Amino acid sequence: MSSNRAVAYKGPGKVEVIDIDYPTYELQDGPGVNPDNVGRKLPHAAILKVVTTNICGSDQHMVRGRTTAPKDLVLGHEITGEVIETGPGVEFINKGDLVSVPFNISCGRCEMCKTRRTEICLNVNPDRPGSAYGYVDMGGWVGGQAEYVLVPYADWNLLKFPDKDQAMEKILDLTMLSDIFPTGFHGAVSAGVGPGSSVYIAGAGPVGTAAAVGAQLLGASVVIMADMNAERLANAAKFGCETIDVSTEDPREGIARILGREEVDAGVDAVGFEARGHGKDAQEAPATVLNTLMDVTRAGGALGIPGLYVTGDPGGVDEAAQQGSLSLRLGLGWAKALAFTTGQCPVMKYHRQLMEAILHDKVQIADAVNAAAISLDDAPAGYEKFDSGVATKYVIDPHGMTGKVQPV
Amino acid sequence: MSSNRAVAYKGPGKVEVIDIDYPTYELQDGPGVNPDNVGRKLPHAAILKVVTTNICGSDQHMVRGRTTAPKDLVLGHEITGEVIETGPGVEFINKGDLVSVPFNISCGRCEMCKTRRTEICLNVNPDRPGSAYGYVDMGGWVGGQAEYVLVPYADWNLLKFPDKDQAMEKILDLTMLSDIFPTGFHGAVSAGVGPGSSVYIAGAGPVGTAAAVGAQLLGASVVIMADMNAERLANAAKFGCETIDVSTEDPREGIARILGREEVDAGVDAVGFEARGHGKDAQEAPATVLNTLMDVTRAGGALGIPGLYVTGDPGGVDEAAQQGSLSLRLGLGWAKALAFTTGQCPVMKYHRQLMEAILHDKVQIADAVNAAAISLDDAPAGYEKFDSGVATKYVIDPHGMTGKVQPV
Amino acid sequence: MSSNRAVAYKGPGKVEVIDIDYPTYELQDGPGVNPDNVGRKLPHAAILKVVTTNICGSDQHMVRGRTTAPKDLVLGHEITGEVIETGPGVEFINKGDLVSVPFNISCGRCEMCKTRRTEICLNVNPDRPGSAYGYVDMGGWVGGQAEYVLVPYADWNLLKFPDKDQAMEKILDLTMLSDIFPTGFHGAVSAGVGPGSSVYIAGAGPVGTAAAVGAQLLGASVVIMADMNAERLANAAKFGCETIDVSTEDPREGIARILGREEVDAGVDAVGFEARGHGKDAQEAPATVLNTLMDVTRAGGALGIPGLYVTGDPGGVDEAAQQGSLSLRLGLGWAKALAFTTGQCPVMKYHRQLMEAILHDKVQIADAVNAAAISLDDAPAGYEKFDSGVATKYVIDPHGMTGKVQPV
Amino acid sequence: MSSNRAVAYKGPGKVEVIDIDYPTYELQDGPGVNPDNVGRKLPHAAILKVVTTNICGSDQHMVRGRTTAPKDLVLGHEITGEVIETGPGVEFINKGDLVSVPFNISCGRCEMCKTRRTEICLNVNPDRPGSAYGYVDMGGWVGGQAEYVLVPYADWNLLKFPDKDQAMEKILDLTMLSDIFPTGFHGAVSAGVGPGSSVYIAGAGPVGTAAAVGAQLLGASVVIMADMNAERLANAAKFGCETIDVSTEDPREGIARILGREEVDAGVDAVGFEARGHGKDAQEAPATVLNTLMDVTRAGGALGIPGLYVTGDPGGVDEAAQQGSLSLRLGLGWAKALAFTTGQCPVMKYHRQLMEAILHDKVQIADAVNAAAISLDDAPAGYEKFDSGVATKYVIDPHGMTGKVQPV
Repeated sequence: MSSNRAVAYKGPGKVEVIDIDYPTYELQDGPGVNPDNVGRKLPHAAILKVVTTNICGSDQHMVRGRTTAPKDLVLGHEITGEVIETGPGVEFINKGDLVSVPFNISCGRCEMCKTRRTEICLNVNPDRPGSAYGYVDMGGWVGGQAEYVLVPYADWNLLKFPDKDQAMEKILDLTMLSDIFPTGFHGAVSAGVGPGSSVYIAGAGPVGTAAAVGAQLLGASVVIMADMNAERLANAAKFGCETIDVSTEDPREGIARILGREEVDAGVDAVGFEARGHGKDAQEAPATVLNTLMDVTRAGGALGIPGLYVTGDPGGVDEAAQQGSLSLRLGLGWAKALAFTTGQCPVMKYHRQLMEAILHDKVQIADAVNAAAISLDDAPAGYEKFDSGVATKYVIDPHGMTGKVQPV
Repeated sequence: MSSNRAVAYKGPGKVEVIDIDYPTYELQDGPGVNPDNVGRKLPHAAILKVVTTNICGSDQHMVRGRTTAPKDLVLGHEITGEVIETGPGVEFINKGDLVSVPFNISCGRCEMCKTRRTEICLNVNPDRPGSAYGYVDMGGWVGGQAEYVLVPYADWNLLKFPDKDQAMEKILDLTMLSDIFPTGFHGAVSAGVGPGSSVYIAGAGPVGTAAAVGAQLLGASVVIMADMNAERLANAAKFGCETIDVSTEDPREGIARILGREEVDAGVDAVGFEARGHGKDAQEAPATVLNTLMDVTRAGGALGIPGLYVTGDPGGVDEAAQQGSLSLRLGLGWAKALAFTTGQCPVMKYHRQLMEAILHDKVQIADAVNAAAISLDDAPAGYEKFDSGVATKYVIDPHGMTGKVQPV
Repeated sequence: MSSNRAVAYKGPGKVEVIDIDYPTYELQDGPGVNPDNVGRKLPHAAILKVVTTNICGSDQHMVRGRTTAPKDLVLGHEITGEVIETGPGVEFINKGDLVSVPFNISCGRCEMCKTRRTEICLNVNPDRPGSAYGYVDMGGWVGGQAEYVLVPYADWNLLKFPDKDQAMEKILDLTMLSDIFPTGFHGAVSAGVGPGSSVYIAGAGPVGTAAAVGAQLLGASVVIMADMNAERLANAAKFGCETIDVSTEDPREGIARILGREEVDAGVDAVGFEARGHGKDAQEAPATVLNTLMDVTRAGGALGIPGLYVTGDPGGVDEAAQQGSLSLRLGLGWAKALAFTTGQCPVMKYHRQLMEAILHDKVQIADAVNAAAISLDDAPAGYEKFDSGVATKYVIDPHGMTGKVQPV
Repeated sequence: MSSNRAVAYKGPGKVEVIDIDYPTYELQDGPGVNPDNVGRKLPHAAILKVVTTNICGSDQHMVRGRTTAPKDLVLGHEITGEVIETGPGVEFINKGDLVSVPFNISCGRCEMCKTRRTEICLNVNPDRPGSAYGYVDMGGWVGGQAEYVLVPYADWNLLKFPDKDQAMEKILDLTMLSDIFPTGFHGAVSAGVGPGSSVYIAGAGPVGTAAAVGAQLLGASVVIMADMNAERLANAAKFGCETIDVSTEDPREGIARILGREEVDAGVDAVGFEARGHGKDAQEAPATVLNTLMDVTRAGGALGIPGLYVTGDPGGVDEAAQQGSLSLRLGLGWAKALAFTTGQCPVMKYHRQLMEAILHDKVQIADAVNAAAISLDDAPAGYEKFDSGVATKYVIDPHGMTGKVQPV
């Protein structure tokens, strides 16, 4: 029980499975740990045997070298696990519970947590509001792409599945509750999607797909996904979305072809700061997605922006991009009286209701994103394949508990 | 009864009082009238004897030559008047009613009007959603800085004051219901201001002042106004606001001085696209205000943006600005999970409740903005003085009905 | 064109098809017309050739003699039609448009209409806020179970279907937009139903069924319908609802059987004042449904109450019931911190988005309620059959335009 | 430090100061303690030296013998104190902090707490959702009208005042944050009060007064308080309310006298189940207040119901009242499309923003309710005087820390 293995960032383009320490009820120093967090006591924590832990598009930003992540940073913020041990301050979570871990770490005691804004908890990251496991500049909480992981403030953070056997049957769906399903759903909610809405989702990767499934759950009548990746677009069509290949079709024209009018009610940015321009041979152009969304969303509409934008990007195309500045057509947005919602999804605001939707077969999120269970040792291969743009969501199963592990 | 006089734009920096036609129940051709609106029948309109009509900061954009407004465009979209005639389709508004006119013209029949989004009515402006009296590219509705003005869809648009005598006593307050009071209030509402909030308002002109009064009415505990104009800041202090002179003090430092912490709960942009940078000798820098607001608003806060941003600005500092593009620190905003609300204020959403607040002495908006009644002939002088940055809101009283006309 | 035939109330238990006047642009005196409405000019009206007009459960209250409805009152407030003529004040609705008519008549000019509360419009009923076609004490607007009907304030009230041919294909679904689909949906919305919710709907008639379909569209994970009518419960099961037969099973026990816990998140009353007690041989007991809903809805939940409660019921079981008073367990509701929403559904708030959901095949409301088109002459038979408790929603097609008329 | 004295219920009409145990980090058995709570470990608790603890109208229900409260139950749920000790599980609250205690005890870990519904926390009361200090059937948490009190889940529950000296200067205002100010404010919020509203508040005791102050803070233009107690009505007039003495004036007539129309926008019930009828010599009539509110609130309005209604009342006027059933005019409420919000106020939803309003002098709640500091030994006299209907809010100061203690 005292050994542990995990996926670590080893430098641009490179991840490896390494040996790390088994968690203890104190935050230890290590790669990327904020000095002010070192030695922090964690009696409120639980230790989880990781059942599933997914590779996320935001992990890729680090792996591509687009951040200041240090070597040996343990990755992984999409975690589902079985509680095997709890600290002395844990009261309601018990050994044996099967639980989903919101990727945003939050304390459940601060002003933000009390107002459901767990994505900007004030007590977990000495640098700024908000934190996550296994992520650069997030305080130094050890990532969960590992055999075992520690979850602080366990009573607050963890969502217990009501029936363990039932949950294991749907584990490839439930594993999406830690991040991408709520994140995509939040994008749809903050774009104002409701019964009868038409919505344009930029980006048909896992978050965009989750936004599409979320929009369908919210009652949207037409969900349009736009991307340049043919495989991902084909996947979107599979579960009932309309699609626009922006490498060959103008977004407004595509919408007109589908809806008979050039604008949608709601727009979701599921791409973020590594956006490319449209058309053939498009280069990176970070404002493309947001400017397109302002163009194609009808007056009075709203934009949900779950796609990540950062305050610093060493690989940005120019100085402005490197500081996280974008040249946005705000004049257009203002003339159309648009509203914009940015930021991480506060997972806890949505994960319980989405769990209910999964458990009662209202949604098939695993099918939509093509969840594929892989072994811990195959994680590096999974990262590489995912980076190539396949329409697959890789779910690392470190202990083979899902019974569904397949080669990458 | 068949004569009419009005304030018209005559070219950059120049306005004049000219003779114009008395209104008829058909939209006539004229300067800036959209061809598709010419000849439009208006049986639903009322003709008003203008009691008061205010000079607005957004009129100044035109007068400064920062738009494509044509010569002889009749100005004025802040109108209060007495109904002297109604078209055959008017049922509930009657001759003699004293009424406030929302500056956004709306039809009361389209999808947007039915959802309270009168600022983007689909039926009044052939060019785009949304319209206003006396404004460039807004369809060509004749402005109200005149003796008489026509208001279409009168039953829908007009807010009748319940008691005429009582209303005339408070007419310098009530005249603010046509635009700036709801506009400022909308800024505060969309910034999430409520009981106990701290709010930073960029711009201490009339709209910023109205936002401050609105924030106080909403229960804000601390209202901070920032500007570079000493007279306007002094005025803000007069009715209980804290102030920051951004020509000499850094906004975060100013907030820390006032609140003991560097960020506020809510931010309002009451400046818009003609923003200048901070510090001494600052030049026009259109993204300054929004970038500052992202900086000084706490994580999880919201920005209300009643300040006008345009899709085209011939006088913009560079090509981007001329197209209405701004270099915004969206990465910062995203990291703080901020929300942004843009666009014209839908006046009708707020004017009735604000009227009640005025009539029952909950607010003194006229005092706050230093409303000053002037004659129609003094309008050009009023424009000039207002442009110099005085802390005065000029209220044109074409018929001397307020009994309060004074020289400029 | 000058003849017209309609369904009229002829006394308790009796309806007949009679000859009535063809509509004119003035409200004529007649059975149940409020004197203050007689002679009212209606230049804003459109005259419709009725395509479909449904029999409603609330019509039955009148037909059963539970109201003061006068003899010869023309029935019908669920109307879909083709515009064949418009008054001089109509601007955006045109001859030939195929339209849905919200059952609440509203003016589009008053304070309530401007805030989307069209169910309590202040200008259409001299007696009280709110009105409807063909209903007692609602001002005297002639009912629409007729060949032709007049719709006042046509630009405001009418929802135009974007494509006539497409609409005629789905006409049995779209006809539900005039009342029961929005009404049921409003019940679900005001009960707080959203993704993942469990909801208990009392009453499996057409409104309850529409509430169930609405709840499914809103993302509910479990929809439970309760009734004493086996046929209606079987129908509910058909489209994916769980069911409880309250004549033989205790509601809490039924919920426990279905959910594994005794309470739901949300409760909908789709029964109203003619409720009976539970169990075998239950008698009328008007507070039963609401008291049950307070019992079975979890703490913090909400109750949507689209079921009709009246201010006077000549057939009430006791004096209190006759005045519309109910003995409610408010102490229980208070201890559970429940919220209650009552009143007519403001149809216009929902009909456009529900139309989109129908047109894009997100919902099959006609199938759920078993819509059956019948001829005008068969209307009396339809009323009788509906009153017997069949799980059928009768859609009168006076001109045989649906091509689907069948015998009752 | 190991002694403790407290106010205890000794039987109908009788309270006494008794010796009780000093708190420990385990819930001990005692009068009214739920067996399932006995022995509960409380490492997350803090022990407070009580600075102020107010006598509440809901305490009076117990003292009057209208509940099943056992002899020797320690009273007091309105608590402000200084932290003198914290359990090992407390991380952010520190010794020396001056804090306000929400009267609703909540765990900060359950589904309800996570959705801000702390008034129905699932983990603190074995009998039902929701709890409070020193109250019958609330789990057995020891009351705070004592020298020392234990607060469980201290990091979650406690609101720390930012500056201790500043706070002590306003302590008679801040002491109202534990219950009545948020409770009254919640009544106003749930009645839909906002800028410009007119509101009718039934009951001019401390909660009604707090609702009035809350309504003013929310921007209400006219606040009307109704009561039969001349002293309390005079008090209401003192801070700007209009008043109706319902022992001599009909509520609708009173409203017409004040507003010029017979209905208000919003209604608040600050009376609860011990309501009396109106008019001279009115007897207890528990439905009076709610039926009056339905009568005087305009169509489309809302009712906030902070007044307590119970599931069992041994002293109820009849069998229905004893079970918490009321004969309500729901037919009238339905016809007017009213909404109703019941239940305890979730204090934590409001106390921070109201603290800001107090600290920045936006409200003077202590003046409005006539807060009077008294000694612990005078508590019985305070209860007696309060029960007589004086317009005074008694604030027990067990250690003389306010420096404002006066004789009752």
